[in-house]
Amino acid sequence: MKVLHGLYELERLAVVLVRPRNPLNIGAAARAMSNFGCGRLRVVNPYDVAFREARSAMGASEILAQAEEFNSVAKAVADCALVVGTTAVGHRELQHPLRRLDEGAGLIRERLRSERVALLFGSEKAGLSNQDLSYCHWMLHIPTRQEHISMNLGQAVAVCLYELARNAAVDHADFEDREEECEHAVASEVERITQMLLRALDASGYVKSDSEAATEEKVRRLVRRMNLDSPDADVWLGMLRQILWKLGRG
Amino acid sequence: MKVLHGLYELERLAVVLVRPRNPLNIGAAARAMSNFGCGRLRVVNPYDVAFREARSAMGASEILAQAEEFNSVAKAVADCALVVGTTAVGHRELQHPLRRLDEGAGLIRERLRSERVALLFGSEKAGLSNQDLSYCHWMLHIPTRQEHISMNLGQAVAVCLYELARNAAVDHADFEDREEECEHAVASEVERITQMLLRALDASGYVKSDSEAATEEKVRRLVRRMNLDSPDADVWLGMLRQILWKLGRG
Repeated sequence: MKVLHGLYELERLAVVLVRPRNPLNIGAAARAMSNFGCGRLRVVNPYDVAFREARSAMGASEILAQAEEFNSVAKAVADCALVVGTTAVGHRELQHPLRRLDEGAGLIRERLRSERVALLFGSEKAGLSNQDLSYCHWMLHIPTRQEHISMNLGQAVAVCLYELARNAAVDHADFEDREEECEHAVASEVERITQMLLRALDASGYVKSDSEAATEEKVRRLVRRMNLDSPDADVWLGMLRQILWKLGRG
Repeated sequence: MKVLHGLYELERLAVVLVRPRNPLNIGAAARAMSNFGCGRLRVVNPYDVAFREARSAMGASEILAQAEEFNSVAKAVADCALVVGTTAVGHRELQHPLRRLDEGAGLIRERLRSERVALLFGSEKAGLSNQDLSYCHWMLHIPTRQEHISMNLGQAVAVCLYELARNAAVDHADFEDREEECEHAVASEVERITQMLLRALDASGYVKSDSEAATEEKVRRLVRRMNLDSPDADVWLGMLRQILWKLGRG
């Protein structure tokens, strides 16, 4: 599976939906998996109609077509070396270590280098049961506002996969390159713009003769602060030339 | 609004959905906003039925009830000092700086300390139009697999807000230095400058009637790239007012 530069390889990750009820959520989970390059969808005891509906939906992905169905969490995670449950926290006492998504993601990535990892999401209403949790090594939670901790299933899957796929170290280099893409206007171009703008202002009566020098400096600084790149400087020159011509100063 | 440890305050962020068509997506966006403590939902020209349906849905949140409706992007972002568009990239040539979500999020958080920021999401089918983009200072993209770059709208909102909300503590230290910077011009000021410049160009014969729309977009982008602070915006308004007066369009 080809991934964008900087995206982590999530092929060994299995997203396990336990007792999902809403076909749209199953479809949304599959779509996010496709977005972030995670190929393995497993469904445990889905509400039957929902699963069939999701599979037959318009544009249902390959991921959905290849989704595997299981009748127990045990079977769904059988080939995984690490099993992580997701929780909104707060609705039950946890008997597991609990990690924030950003911390937990690093641990999962490490394991994914050589092993299969299962990431469990519970049903829309009740989340994961205590029995489901008993198959998990630890729990993951997405930090949210305390007053509204329960996320939509499809959105929770998307956020988890996004965090697993991102790779901060690579980004920085990427970003710096991009910053330097556009050539900055050279000083002479910037000064030409300054002069043309000053002439337009002079022709319009903006510049008072007693404060001419001060205005010139003010405008010069103003134009520098535009921090123009070279193509934009050309456009400004063209616009000012036309305005000056109309003002009779061309 | 109370937030969990480490969550950033997103109250000043406006999530702007441009021409959304699916009520479930509007509802999902509102839910993610509630999860991550972002209070301001704005909707531009929604498919009417969708918006009404979303609002009347079971358990529709306060956020949805208080969502504001606008008939143009300009009005929806008028009070925002930074306007950021989201894109899946690749479907059109971008004339804007493009930042990965994790990089861009830091810049947005900085601005949110003192100013309003708008984050734009386009319609499910077509995304943001070139005209929508002309109101943006820069673009944000969620890194995905190259073969499947288009994300579900509700999931894209959730991922963006998750990234904006996380790691606040780390960023705080960086902010101290920037406290003394000038306040940025809000979008309505920037748009006024755009309109005055367009009138001056029109009066000067710079704008050809057969390419009026293209010129307008080009100029709108150009003015956004000036990245004006509030005092400079005032100066530009004064200068353009005088030039327009002289051109007989004041």
